[in-house]
Amino acid sequence: MQDDFLARLAAIVGANQVLTGADAAPFAVSARRVRGDCLAVVRPGTTQEVADVVRLAASCAVPVVPQGGNTGLSDGAVPRGPGVLVLSLSRLNAVLDVDPLNFTMTVQAGVVLAAAQQAASAHGLLLPISLGAEGSCQIGGNLATNAGGKSVLKHGMARACVLGLEVVLPDGTVWNGLKQLRKDNAGYDLKQLFVGAEGTLGTITAAVLALQPAPRTTVTAFVAVPGPAQAIRLLARLRRDSGDCVSAFELMNRYALQVPLAHMPGASRPFDALPAWAVLVELSSCRRDDPLAALLEDALAAAMDAQEVVDAVVAQSQAQALAFWKLRDEGTAFYWKEGGMLLHDPSVPIRSIPDFVERVAQGVEQAASGARVSAFGHIGDGNIHIIVSQPEGADKRAFLALAPAIQQVVYGTAVALGGSFSAEHGIGQLKTAHLARYGDPVALQLMRRLRAALDPRGTMNPRTLFDLQAET
Amino acid sequence: MQDDFLARLAAIVGANQVLTGADAAPFAVSARRVRGDCLAVVRPGTTQEVADVVRLAASCAVPVVPQGGNTGLSDGAVPRGPGVLVLSLSRLNAVLDVDPLNFTMTVQAGVVLAAAQQAASAHGLLLPISLGAEGSCQIGGNLATNAGGKSVLKHGMARACVLGLEVVLPDGTVWNGLKQLRKDNAGYDLKQLFVGAEGTLGTITAAVLALQPAPRTTVTAFVAVPGPAQAIRLLARLRRDSGDCVSAFELMNRYALQVPLAHMPGASRPFDALPAWAVLVELSSCRRDDPLAALLEDALAAAMDAQEVVDAVVAQSQAQALAFWKLRDEGTAFYWKEGGMLLHDPSVPIRSIPDFVERVAQGVEQAASGARVSAFGHIGDGNIHIIVSQPEGADKRAFLALAPAIQQVVYGTAVALGGSFSAEHGIGQLKTAHLARYGDPVALQLMRRLRAALDPRGTMNPRTLFDLQAET
Repeated sequence: MQDDFLARLAAIVGANQVLTGADAAPFAVSARRVRGDCLAVVRPGTTQEVADVVRLAASCAVPVVPQGGNTGLSDGAVPRGPGVLVLSLSRLNAVLDVDPLNFTMTVQAGVVLAAAQQAASAHGLLLPISLGAEGSCQIGGNLATNAGGKSVLKHGMARACVLGLEVVLPDGTVWNGLKQLRKDNAGYDLKQLFVGAEGTLGTITAAVLALQPAPRTTVTAFVAVPGPAQAIRLLARLRRDSGDCVSAFELMNRYALQVPLAHMPGASRPFDALPAWAVLVELSSCRRDDPLAALLEDALAAAMDAQEVVDAVVAQSQAQALAFWKLRDEGTAFYWKEGGMLLHDPSVPIRSIPDFVERVAQGVEQAASGARVSAFGHIGDGNIHIIVSQPEGADKRAFLALAPAIQQVVYGTAVALGGSFSAEHGIGQLKTAHLARYGDPVALQLMRRLRAALDPRGTMNPRTLFDLQAET
Repeated sequence: MQDDFLARLAAIVGANQVLTGADAAPFAVSARRVRGDCLAVVRPGTTQEVADVVRLAASCAVPVVPQGGNTGLSDGAVPRGPGVLVLSLSRLNAVLDVDPLNFTMTVQAGVVLAAAQQAASAHGLLLPISLGAEGSCQIGGNLATNAGGKSVLKHGMARACVLGLEVVLPDGTVWNGLKQLRKDNAGYDLKQLFVGAEGTLGTITAAVLALQPAPRTTVTAFVAVPGPAQAIRLLARLRRDSGDCVSAFELMNRYALQVPLAHMPGASRPFDALPAWAVLVELSSCRRDDPLAALLEDALAAAMDAQEVVDAVVAQSQAQALAFWKLRDEGTAFYWKEGGMLLHDPSVPIRSIPDFVERVAQGVEQAASGARVSAFGHIGDGNIHIIVSQPEGADKRAFLALAPAIQQVVYGTAVALGGSFSAEHGIGQLKTAHLARYGDPVALQLMRRLRAALDPRGTMNPRTLFDLQAET
């Protein structure tokens, strides 16, 4: 039966595109090193092959896990059983079209994000999706998880740039919704249902993405602020005064600065004395020679008068700007040097950030006295990552055993403030229990109805979002 | 039975909030003067009352038509039968919150759009939804129909600003999704399913909307161009050179200029000799004293060198800018003076606009020789309205009998070019047959599955989008 299934897969895609055993094993490990198991990996080369594979799997009740670059941080694309088929989209990697008059590009799902960015950039255009894994993540996965990242403040989440989708539905039907339109009020907006569904409602095979004029002027500054309350006032000021050119606004507390400064080779201090709180600010504009630096300096001077700002360093070179960004972007790689660490991905309304940060600090201190809290993130969009490091010199295992209590502090506080326990990394398999715990019951019921309507057999990514296997 | 139902309604909302007979009649006429019929109009004052009304109606299998300002151009909120209940949201008219630090506002569904705009504006913020009916349309209806209008080029359709929704589901359950978050990847994006669903999946009772810094500098120009091909090149140039400050880009052909100039009191010519094609351009920015006029003049000079522009008049005063806008906005009110007219609302990819306009002109000439075509609209977002006036001196009734053939030219051409037969006005009851004809069969099947999953009894707005009554 199993051999017969593999033979039928091979008949669709060719024998060398069906991987098993050691060839398949690398596809069964998540970016968090969670190790799963699978029947095989199939690598179709066309949308029609994807459809044929999905139809075959559905008819044989074989669970299917669509997989792009497999860089997700919530284990959403890891197969978890010897009977599961991994559907790799990586051979669907053509940039089908870049249209500088329509400000759109059409790409297959397996195009690596950086390749899509470059294709847009070659036409003087910006694909406004950017994140750490962009060198290996694929656009299909970015859309299936509604990726966040660095462009959200100015351009929104990944879903904001989706104009059209092609999707293979759970029964193998192809929906061709590859429209290049900005206006199309002809019934329900189907595409938005698949974006962020983490492969549970269908498999995205191609997309039309809206592009923006590429930035031609950028200015970067590190700004010391008294605290988060002043930071969010500074954000509102800069949005207004800059012509809404704020492209990044990354808050970091002292510990978030200390970790990379202590451990990252070549890290340099933006300030002589480390402030309690700082913000990495970036303004960018597609106007040529836009006087952003002067504009920023004026705004910072006014903010200093208003006691929103303590000190500020405007980058005087591209190299200095990169050094600032390195502190922000690469810091997370060094927390392990401080011992046990717990990472969280909450969001709250921007207004609630000061309150959130204070309550989390108090709650963590109660749960794990002496633990060190790093608060950093894209507060322009309300997403503040919280890393909790063990107390200095404490026992790592004993600290990590406190994970549920600390999670409850962080996510419970976020939800109590109208926030989310899953801002940008998605539910995957990592957070199915969180979804059941913190999710609104009416919303969960609606989601289940949608899932049942589109995937009645529950064969698409059955342990992601809702763990269908645990439930039956 | 009917009396009993009305008594139970009155018990929920109070007797004076249940209108029947002559009191109800005005609610049964659409903005296009299509006249329907209803059992009663109910005007709940709270979300809980809406829920109680919907639950009662569902239990009695009474069809419910949610209604806001009833300004839609596709008859989506008109009751069509003596047993239908109109659910008016107009008493839910509180602005619950405007938050200048979070850049959001929370409003009930019955808030008139202009009142919501003013509430934002009082905090120096912009609610980026603007359309002709803003003085009487309500925000709930704007979201239920995913309104387009003047802000789409820069800020997207109405759905782009929705961060959260409160919805009464078809069985009377309240989903409170009033989140103020820009990032929330915790399962399917339910809110986007209700936006644009025209009340068929539930009734929007409140919403959280993202706001923008209010514009502080604006410049307006009327620009004569050789044709649509040059117009879309000019658009791309202006987007890049202005720092993406193009807030309007409205193409008009000569006939679209002639009609208001001939009939509108006080209309003044922007050019001595009317060009074959012109574009009304607006740049705006929230920077104080942004030198947009100089920037526009430089860009137009470069465009003239590139033969994209023939002539241009930059408005020298607010009054002149308003006069330009009057030609664009109020022209449609005068076509009846030219005899029979047919209005269409297609969209196409921006790149295809020149092709579309040419094919439509040829097709209309074949279908109705001598008919006059007005092509005008928001081509920055691919939405070009087509009004076809009867040939001068022809018989009006004979011309109007050609409507199906002319519609087929306009919408058939749009769809053939990857466009839509319903860009911004929605399906309503007017276009259910168009949806069946031009819609993609796989998409239609998906929409029906969603409708059945969320409204299994089909009691919500049963003749809108899909005409469930005609189908059974």
